[in-house]
Amino acid sequence: MKKQVVRFSVIGYGTVGSGVTEVFRKRKSELEKKAGVKLQLECVCELDGKKTREARRAKLKVISDYKRILDDEKIEIVIELIGGVTAAKDIVFEALEKGKHVITANKALLALYWDEIFKRAKKSGVYVFYEASVGGGIPVIQAIKNGLPANRIEAIYGIINGTTNYILSKMLEKKVTFQEALKNAQERGYAEANPAFDIGGMDSAQKLVILSRLSFLCSLDIRDISVEGIEDITHKDIEYAFEEFGYVTKLLGIAVRRGRALDIRVHPCLIPKGHQLAAVNNVYNAIYLKGDAVGSLMLYGRGAGKLPTASAVLSDLVSLSRNLRNENRPIHLDYGKKARIAGPDSIFSRYYIRFTTIDQPGVLAKIASVLGDNSISIASVIQKDYTSRNAVPIIIMTHEARESSMKKAIGALDRMSEIRKRSVCIRVLE
Amino acid sequence: MKKQVVRFSVIGYGTVGSGVTEVFRKRKSELEKKAGVKLQLECVCELDGKKTREARRAKLKVISDYKRILDDEKIEIVIELIGGVTAAKDIVFEALEKGKHVITANKALLALYWDEIFKRAKKSGVYVFYEASVGGGIPVIQAIKNGLPANRIEAIYGIINGTTNYILSKMLEKKVTFQEALKNAQERGYAEANPAFDIGGMDSAQKLVILSRLSFLCSLDIRDISVEGIEDITHKDIEYAFEEFGYVTKLLGIAVRRGRALDIRVHPCLIPKGHQLAAVNNVYNAIYLKGDAVGSLMLYGRGAGKLPTASAVLSDLVSLSRNLRNENRPIHLDYGKKARIAGPDSIFSRYYIRFTTIDQPGVLAKIASVLGDNSISIASVIQKDYTSRNAVPIIIMTHEARESSMKKAIGALDRMSEIRKRSVCIRVLE
Repeated sequence: MKKQVVRFSVIGYGTVGSGVTEVFRKRKSELEKKAGVKLQLECVCELDGKKTREARRAKLKVISDYKRILDDEKIEIVIELIGGVTAAKDIVFEALEKGKHVITANKALLALYWDEIFKRAKKSGVYVFYEASVGGGIPVIQAIKNGLPANRIEAIYGIINGTTNYILSKMLEKKVTFQEALKNAQERGYAEANPAFDIGGMDSAQKLVILSRLSFLCSLDIRDISVEGIEDITHKDIEYAFEEFGYVTKLLGIAVRRGRALDIRVHPCLIPKGHQLAAVNNVYNAIYLKGDAVGSLMLYGRGAGKLPTASAVLSDLVSLSRNLRNENRPIHLDYGKKARIAGPDSIFSRYYIRFTTIDQPGVLAKIASVLGDNSISIASVIQKDYTSRNAVPIIIMTHEARESSMKKAIGALDRMSEIRKRSVCIRVLE
Repeated sequence: MKKQVVRFSVIGYGTVGSGVTEVFRKRKSELEKKAGVKLQLECVCELDGKKTREARRAKLKVISDYKRILDDEKIEIVIELIGGVTAAKDIVFEALEKGKHVITANKALLALYWDEIFKRAKKSGVYVFYEASVGGGIPVIQAIKNGLPANRIEAIYGIINGTTNYILSKMLEKKVTFQEALKNAQERGYAEANPAFDIGGMDSAQKLVILSRLSFLCSLDIRDISVEGIEDITHKDIEYAFEEFGYVTKLLGIAVRRGRALDIRVHPCLIPKGHQLAAVNNVYNAIYLKGDAVGSLMLYGRGAGKLPTASAVLSDLVSLSRNLRNENRPIHLDYGKKARIAGPDSIFSRYYIRFTTIDQPGVLAKIASVLGDNSISIASVIQKDYTSRNAVPIIIMTHEARESSMKKAIGALDRMSEIRKRSVCIRVLE
C-alpha cells in the first residue's frame, strides 16, 4: 500500500513563496498525477503583517511560529523560502533534526553550511532538494545530479547572476555607463537598492560553490574562490572589447579541473562573439559545462523571478513526493573531500588590459618592458582618442600569460607615475 | 533490506552499444554510488561477426539470441540499442511483456509505437526510459519529465537533427552549395550514405513526436506533422536571408499550442541573428521551449555521437536502477488523448520567398497582385543580380500571412509561365 498523501508547508510568503503557492494551486492535479500522490499544502509561515494579510486573502492558513510546523508529525516537507542565513539556518537545521525533508531556494545557506546541512540530513535519513538555489527555473541541479552521472565534469562556466548580466548587456547595447545601467536595473526590479552583493560577484560565488560541490563531489569554502565584480569595468571597455576584438563581456563563475586541482573563480570575462554564452543577454542565466562523455552542454533560462523560481521549487516537490510515495531513502553522496585549489601559478589566460596613462613619449615602451619582464607577450595595442592628456587609454591584448605574472606586472605598473588610474584587466575565455 | 544488485544486458554492440559498455566500465563505481546499488552488465547481444569479435576483445560476454536475456530472470533491465523498428520492436515488446524494464535510444520505435510500448509497460508495471532518443547527450527528456512538472508547456522549437544543422551551418559559413556541404558532412561521418531521412526532416519529425507527447501529454501520429526538409534551400537563400534580412536558416521541429489545437511541423525556418537558436551551429542540437511558469528555456549540446549518447543511456541506467533499488513502481501518465492538430488556416507567419522568373516587365506586378489577392502584404522586395535572363531571382519578405493563403498564392504563382522554377518559401520564426 503506497502512501496516499504528502503534506508540506511553505515558510516565507515573499515573492517566491507566493509564486509557489499560486502555481501549486493552479497545477495541483497535474502535480499530483506526476508525483503519484495527493499533495496537501498545510500552511504558510510568515511573520510580516502585510504578507500575512496577502496570504490570508489568498485563503491560505497562515501561522507565525515555524515550530508548529516542525512539531506537526503529519507534515513531511518543509519548503524554506525566507532566504538568508539567520532564521533560515535555524529553521532548516531544526527541520532536518526533526526528520522533515527540506526543499530550499537558499543559495547562501547551501554555500555556507553545506556540510552541516547534509550531516543532519544524512543522520535523519531525509532529503534536501535545492533546484531553485542556482539558475532560477533552469533545471541545472537535476541535470548535473541525474542527467550526467556517467561524466567526469571537467569545467563549468556560468552566467549565474541576472543583475550583472542585465547591466553588462545594457552597457553594450545602449552604450550607457555602469551607473546608468545599474539605475535602469534598479528601476526594473532587477537590482537591489544595495547591489553590492550581486555587482561584487558574491552571489555568483555562492551559486558556484553549489554547482561545484555537486559537479566535483568535493568540499569547498566560499573563501576558496577568488572573486572579482564588475565595478571597475566601464562601458568603454565593453565597447572596445566588442568593436576592436570581437568579444562580449560577461561576469562568469568558472570552475575548471587543472590536473588534480580545481581552478575556481568569479570574474568578468571576454567571450568570443560566436560562443553560446555570448548570446546570453539581459536577466537570462546560462550554465555551460563540459563532461568527458557528453562534451559541451549548456542550459539557458530565467535565473530569477517569481514564477521561474516557483517552477524549480515545485519540480523539487514532485520529485521528492514521488520518493516519499515509494518510501525511498535518500542516497547521500560524500561531498566531504576538500578540493585542492589551483593557485595563480597554474592558471593561464589571455588578457585585455586598459591602462590610463599620461600623454608622454615612452610610456608604451615602459609598459611593454614591464610586461616583457614578467614573460607577458603583447598580441596587439590600441591607443584610443582621448579628451584629457592626463587620461590616455592604452588597450593591450596579451597572448596567454600566467595569472601570477600578470598580477605582479599590473601591480608594478600601477605604481608607475605615468599610470593615472588602477588598470582594468579582464581575462579572455579560453 | 534494499536490493543489492541490478543486472542488465545491452542489445546491439554498434557505435552506441560499445560506447555504453566502455563508459560503463570506466565509471562503474561512481555509477553504483549514485544508483545506490551494484550494477552488473550480464552480457551483450550481437549478431554481426565483426562487432561480436570486438565485444569479445573488450572481454564482454556476447550472445546472439536475445531470448536468452529475456528468459534470464536475474536480468531486470534490457538496453535496446539496435535501432529501427523491425527486430528492435520485437525485442522491446517481448522484453516488456516478460516484465523487463527497458532503456532505449530508439526514436523511430517510440515515435511510431509509443502507445503499444507504454500499454505493455503499464500492464507489466515496468519502466521505459529513453533519454538518448532525442538530443543525444542533452538531458532534455528528464528536464521535461522532472524539471518542469509545474508548467503548462506552450511551445517547443528544436534543432534536433545534427546532419541538417551541420549542412546549413557550412552553407552559410563557407558559402558552399547544398551538395558540397552534404558531401563534407558524409566525409566526416555526420551524414549517412543515403541522407534522405535526415535531409527530408523525418528524423526531426520522429524526435518531435517524442518531445510533444511528453510536453503536451497527448497522442500523436507522425503523419499529423507537416514535414519539409532542406533540399530546396540553396546557399544563395541562406546568404540573402543572412545578409539582407539578418536571419540564420535552421531546420526546426516546432510544436506550439494554438488555443486547444497543436500546431506541429518540421521545416526550415529563419531565425533572427540575436536569438539563442541562431548560435546553435554544426552538429550541435538545441531544444528551446516556453513554459507558463519557467518562461523561455533552452538546452544545448551534442545531439549524437558515441559518447554523448552513452552519457544519456547511462543516466537512464542510474535513474532506473535507483528506482529498482527502492522497489518503486512506475507512474504511467496518460498520453492517450489525441491531439487536435491546427490546420494551415490557423497558422500565421512572415515568409521569405524566392521566385525564379524571366526578365520581363510586369512580372513583379503580377506576383504582387497574386499575393495581394490572397491577403498577403509585402514587407520588402529585392531583385538580385542574375546571370541568365531566364532565371532572375526575386526575393520577397512578407508581413504576417496565413499559411493556407500562402500555399494558395504560391500554387497559383508557380503555375504562371513567367515563374521558371518551384518557388522557395521559408517561414520566419515568430
